[in-house]
Amino acid sequence: MKAEIIPENSAGIVTTNYYTFAEPPDELLLVSGKKLGPITLAYETYGTLNSDKSNAILILHALSGSAHAAGYHAKKDMYPGWWDNYVGPGKTFDTSHYFIICSNVIGGCSGSTGPSSINPETGKEYGLDFPIVTIQDMVNAQYHLIKFFGIQKLLSVVGGSMGGMQALQWSISYPDMVQSVVAIATAASLSAQGIAFNEVGRQAIMLDPNWNYGDYYNNENPKNGLSLARMIGHITYLSEKLMHEKFGRRLQHSDIFKFHMDLEFEVESYLHHKGNDFVQRFDANSYLYITKAIDYFDLKNDFNGDLANAFVNVNSNYLVISFSSDWLYPTSQSREIVRALRMNSKNVIFTEIQSDKGHDTFLLPHEQLEHNIANFLKREFEKVHRK
Amino acid sequence: MKAEIIPENSAGIVTTNYYTFAEPPDELLLVSGKKLGPITLAYETYGTLNSDKSNAILILHALSGSAHAAGYHAKKDMYPGWWDNYVGPGKTFDTSHYFIICSNVIGGCSGSTGPSSINPETGKEYGLDFPIVTIQDMVNAQYHLIKFFGIQKLLSVVGGSMGGMQALQWSISYPDMVQSVVAIATAASLSAQGIAFNEVGRQAIMLDPNWNYGDYYNNENPKNGLSLARMIGHITYLSEKLMHEKFGRRLQHSDIFKFHMDLEFEVESYLHHKGNDFVQRFDANSYLYITKAIDYFDLKNDFNGDLANAFVNVNSNYLVISFSSDWLYPTSQSREIVRALRMNSKNVIFTEIQSDKGHDTFLLPHEQLEHNIANFLKREFEKVHRK
Repeated sequence: MKAEIIPENSAGIVTTNYYTFAEPPDELLLVSGKKLGPITLAYETYGTLNSDKSNAILILHALSGSAHAAGYHAKKDMYPGWWDNYVGPGKTFDTSHYFIICSNVIGGCSGSTGPSSINPETGKEYGLDFPIVTIQDMVNAQYHLIKFFGIQKLLSVVGGSMGGMQALQWSISYPDMVQSVVAIATAASLSAQGIAFNEVGRQAIMLDPNWNYGDYYNNENPKNGLSLARMIGHITYLSEKLMHEKFGRRLQHSDIFKFHMDLEFEVESYLHHKGNDFVQRFDANSYLYITKAIDYFDLKNDFNGDLANAFVNVNSNYLVISFSSDWLYPTSQSREIVRALRMNSKNVIFTEIQSDKGHDTFLLPHEQLEHNIANFLKREFEKVHRK
Repeated sequence: MKAEIIPENSAGIVTTNYYTFAEPPDELLLVSGKKLGPITLAYETYGTLNSDKSNAILILHALSGSAHAAGYHAKKDMYPGWWDNYVGPGKTFDTSHYFIICSNVIGGCSGSTGPSSINPETGKEYGLDFPIVTIQDMVNAQYHLIKFFGIQKLLSVVGGSMGGMQALQWSISYPDMVQSVVAIATAASLSAQGIAFNEVGRQAIMLDPNWNYGDYYNNENPKNGLSLARMIGHITYLSEKLMHEKFGRRLQHSDIFKFHMDLEFEVESYLHHKGNDFVQRFDANSYLYITKAIDYFDLKNDFNGDLANAFVNVNSNYLVISFSSDWLYPTSQSREIVRALRMNSKNVIFTEIQSDKGHDTFLLPHEQLEHNIANFLKREFEKVHRK
């Protein structure tokens, strides 16, 4: 979709903004005990913050996302932001009513401080000297951004996958700042299988000789390793059924086997295409740091082994959504969150959406998902303005 | 299990044998149209062939298997053969009644002709000059081995995973030589998701700079790439539930995170251990060739797009078994085979065994599986001797 004519319901031409804080000696104290600063967060906003700052929604992205959730950076842009289907005038996150903030994460590579940023102590890129960051650290950094806007309470904090982890963490870390949470295709902790897939992705990067223990910024990037990591990840984002329907066993260029070692099946070339696309826009070290943050996230472990404890002090209303064919963040993990919330008599709506499209369903247009979120947001907005 | 005292129900001390055939000018014509010869097949036998040669069972192995299915190669061996739980006196494949042959495959690296063998034309290892081989080619090579034994009809041809593909192919290629088939956790063709996983495994090998386009036999092996391929594969052999129960989110050496990039979770070190083990005994190029053979296998495609056509001329009785938690070769794929056989009014017993252990269930002790196979073999033996 080349945006020569930008659609009417688009957020339009947007720009990424950058907020820098935690300048020494006021660095951010990380969960690890290390300090990080200065910190820059990349973010975008769509819509207008109302006078009492009560219409702000914070959108948080998944592993490979960025602050660019909606609209186009230029008229010649080939693609809009990653959640453009959902964010714009008249869309689920209706920018004629709400003020949408999409924040990038620390550890990332899309304008925020991460391993590819310059380490002020050395004057060169951090590489593996970048400290390990957690989901909690990402949220603590975003807190500074929200404070900068002067927003006392977010109408909603919303995210899918790792974005959902951040949204849950927001409601736990800053219970008085979060009116509601939309947690999509996420978990209170990643499964053993999920950790396993993240680890083979990391190993793929480290196997690339260009990785060079993370010190590659003045040389060739480990693009083959990063591409392979992305290919592995991509398999887990789709359902077996979707892959079957989309590619089956079709060959790329022919009806007959070529009896060589090159790519032949459509599913192979699709994955290679996804891998090659990814390396144009993502940093291999950020892939290591962000997958590690996902692996570490464990609300149960953070609260003495009982997930119910995590939600004792929250003040938010929750919409929890899973997808029937998501095997990376299966419905059972969403149910675990819902159970823990209900044990604390918190207000939670849970929906398992029937979908064949796997984990990545939330990135695709989906009427029921759009409808559920839009209605939830509307009710939360009404609650706030009834008060 | 160190075999200082070899258990009574073991096949005992066994040796691998080698049969060489297809000497030029009588090379084996491959499906690709290329020729391969001379060919050596590694095989082992357990038990005694009876006088009318009617008690022979051919066991065929999966991707990473070998001819060494049972017993020990030496008293000091750490481990027995890969299907020792199932093969021995009094076991499922009772060596006091049956004559068991386990044959390796062409393309392999455990004593049979494959990419690490010497190419007679060049005097050095084939590497990528080795021709692409198919499951059909593997079976055609094994046919020569069975002929060498003077066996007219195999009581059963048995295999799991890729071994099951070979077993099905045997009954199609040599319908008069196969009394029965036991096809476990297999498929008439690999799914798109399965191809995707094989492809990322191959890419892991090719990413290792030591791979050197397959020409590494006089240098360092691409052991890191092969290890990663095995790690990826291993995730798919286990169920999510088994991984959860076996490892969960437990850390290896500590209760608390270390905030570094090294391995920390038990599931990570388990996979690394599996990968490191594998590179001691497997050739990276063989991994490429054998996964390619699995990808190519497609009985539907071989018979004009209709799987029922594949079984029109078979003369075997079938036992088809799937495992409820096997997501690599799901039950639906076994059902597809069963349906195609039944459309041809063939004799087929189908069982989905409830198991939490995923695809690899067939390699583990499992009473119901043992019982089902043993009974099936007994009945097939009786049928033959009633004639």
